[in-house]
Amino acid sequence: MAKIECYFISGSPPCWSIMLALAAKGLSYEPRRLDNSKREHKSEAFLAINPRGRVPVLVDADITVRETNAILAYLEVAYPEPTLFGASPAQAAAIWQIVSEADERLRNPISSITRPIFRGRAAEMAADITETIQPVREELNAFENRLDSHPYLVGEALSAADVVVYPALMQLLRGATRDGAEALNLKVAPLDKHYPNLAAWARRIVVIPGYDSAYPPHWR
Amino acid sequence: MAKIECYFISGSPPCWSIMLALAAKGLSYEPRRLDNSKREHKSEAFLAINPRGRVPVLVDADITVRETNAILAYLEVAYPEPTLFGASPAQAAAIWQIVSEADERLRNPISSITRPIFRGRAAEMAADITETIQPVREELNAFENRLDSHPYLVGEALSAADVVVYPALMQLLRGATRDGAEALNLKVAPLDKHYPNLAAWARRIVVIPGYDSAYPPHWR
Repeated sequence: MAKIECYFISGSPPCWSIMLALAAKGLSYEPRRLDNSKREHKSEAFLAINPRGRVPVLVDADITVRETNAILAYLEVAYPEPTLFGASPAQAAAIWQIVSEADERLRNPISSITRPIFRGRAAEMAADITETIQPVREELNAFENRLDSHPYLVGEALSAADVVVYPALMQLLRGATRDGAEALNLKVAPLDKHYPNLAAWARRIVVIPGYDSAYPPHWR
Repeated sequence: MAKIECYFISGSPPCWSIMLALAAKGLSYEPRRLDNSKREHKSEAFLAINPRGRVPVLVDADITVRETNAILAYLEVAYPEPTLFGASPAQAAAIWQIVSEADERLRNPISSITRPIFRGRAAEMAADITETIQPVREELNAFENRLDSHPYLVGEALSAADVVVYPALMQLLRGATRDGAEALNLKVAPLDKHYPNLAAWARRIVVIPGYDSAYPPHWR
């Protein structure tokens, strides 16, 4: 069987989510890293694979899938065990809701928060960042509450909700612990202090076999 | 069994898509129309059902699901037959890709085109509209090509791709045939002339049992 290939940019939360999903399903894959700074995702070679010029992209033999949620859905159909979409229709609904809202409620606002921090513009953008963190913290509060009664975001087993939320939260923490971010008072780091359930949950993600290979290379 | 309820706003393409999905699966449901002009989707009663204040929302006994793609995924898990996500992993990938890109590639740009037309501002906004229709026409061209070899957008059977694309296309056609839209030269209406395969495909959608109940009430 041809190995699955996963095209990714290091540190991109949706790419990391796909690699965690592959790990959770016990699938081996060839990571195909594209260098963002060289705009390799806009190169002719990559546009032949995905004309949209975006990652993640999964190539599985003769099937090419783009769009994070489409890749998650594809993996579930092609490799059903272990499931990442719950043990019941109610769990499937809860998981898909978190997955469907991830861009709008987590990835986009978190990226608006961390981008200026990584670029050394935290002080200048402080007002915007302080406004943007509020609804993100509401999401985190909701997740924290969910984890009161279950080890994972939806139920007793790891699901697509976990692999989607985790990289976004790690990106936020990376920003929140940078020099210059302390004054923003984001109230997320240290995670143990602000969100103890999420901190315990994050330790459960770290032990997924394959976690290390999915970790963003340039964060090491 | 408690009847499924579908909260919708008349003419909203994603709501219409959910009602077509329910029809395609042969499920009976109670349509719960919210009056956009009275902002009923922001009423206290509805916010108790969906704190985001958005439609579509599906209520199935004790399960409440928001987000179009989450509802489509939920319906597939809860009511697997007939499937709306294809007969193979390759078809599932193609269907999920179209579904995942629908907001960005179809619903949002089409709504940017039709909103000014419905508000009588077509002439004023002509330059924006002419620019926005180009990538939409590229999507329609791709669909037209797909229909060269198959009766539905992905394969031999109706799928979630069809129920997602159809309402967006109908909204575009409704805009394109309004007074004042002719000068925009959108090249979509009449559909038979510009996209004969899509016109034939649309006639296949119309005969879905339950099509009439899903049709936007205020368009009748």
